Amino acid sequence: MLIELKISTKLREDLIDITDLVLEKIEQSGIKNGIAVIFVPHTTAAILINENSDPMVKKDILEYYKRNVPLDYDYYHVEGNSDAHIKSTLIGNSLTLIVENSKVILGSWQGIFFCEFDGPRIRKVYIKIIPG
Amino acid sequence: MLIELKISTKLREDLIDITDLVLEKIEQSGIKNGIAVIFVPHTTAAILINENSDPMVKKDILEYYKRNVPLDYDYYHVEGNSDAHIKSTLIGNSLTLIVENSKVILGSWQGIFFCEFDGPRIRKVYIKIIPG
Amino acid sequence: MLIELKISTKLREDLIDITDLVLEKIEQSGIKNGIAVIFVPHTTAAILINENSDPMVKKDILEYYKRNVPLDYDYYHVEGNSDAHIKSTLIGNSLTLIVENSKVILGSWQGIFFCEFDGPRIRKVYIKIIPG
Repeated sequence: MLIELKISTKLREDLIDITDLVLEKIEQSGIKNGIAVIFVPHTTAAILINENSDPMVKKDILEYYKRNVPLDYDYYHVEGNSDAHIKSTLIGNSLTLIVENSKVILGSWQGIFFCEFDGPRIRKVYIKIIPG
Repeated sequence: MLIELKISTKLREDLIDITDLVLEKIEQSGIKNGIAVIFVPHTTAAILINENSDPMVKKDILEYYKRNVPLDYDYYHVEGNSDAHIKSTLIGNSLTLIVENSKVILGSWQGIFFCEFDGPRIRKVYIKIIPG
Repeated sequence: MLIELKISTKLREDLIDITDLVLEKIEQSGIKNGIAVIFVPHTTAAILINENSDPMVKKDILEYYKRNVPLDYDYYHVEGNSDAHIKSTLIGNSLTLIVENSKVILGSWQGIFFCEFDGPRIRKVYIKIIPG
């Protein structure tokens, strides 16, 4: 089964917590056991799993990527978003979740974040469920 | 089939070679062909595949992440482990192996490393096997 | 089904656009719906998805990794390719594509790049197809 999510981002760079939305969609699919592949079809976006309990962690992550991959630099690509493409390659645009007994396995502190580095935009995320 | 591993780390930051353990568990499962998804349910840990022949490579990798993501910095999150959360997002907490003819496909120089950046801790790694 | 690709690289560091080759192999396999796991069995190589429309993006990505992970540094591993091992861990060596209605899902601007950081070499890429 293929699920498509729509996500609106409001800032140039942001981590949007989509944990509840992703878990609801996967668990509503009726899958009991298997995997769920998450795929982001955009080149300035990414997907990551990290702490969503203290929102300061998200701020530290965003700030690190800003500091580490500067917006202003003498890039070859002239659209002004090379930093966003590079950040996307560092984090990656697919990940795989495990489903067991109708529940997605996530650690107590883990949340799923959609990452946009060249927003604001309306974006898609695909979730493909493979029973097994 | 879902397999759960327990891993004890001894240092704040370490790469633990879990290749033999992971291969043994997957190959003992009786799967002939398919994939094995590895998932780490922790926010200061990660999983990577790289050279495990010369242990100096592991030292270089660890040192790079230390240098690139400083422990001491004016972070927003006050628990003193923001560097570990950031390192976890750079490496990632899931990966997928291919199983063919009852063997996991790995290159000659490749080993599987569990990465802890805020230990010592007792940690879990999940392996989900999907035949196909 | 397991597919094996051979890729020749010509430079020490390069991103080779393998989109057409990967899509052709997956779509020729006859799979209608499912996933395709891509796995790189080398420790100085990696696989990423990003923009392949403007070739300047690829140049910016390559230059960032060169700048961020220096070739010349006082590394422990003495083979002179520690930078390549580290770059491989930042990008990762596996990713998963979704197949729907006999087509691989990719965004309009997305291409699949094989990354070599210690070439030139002849390299392998495995693709494992799981229907579902």
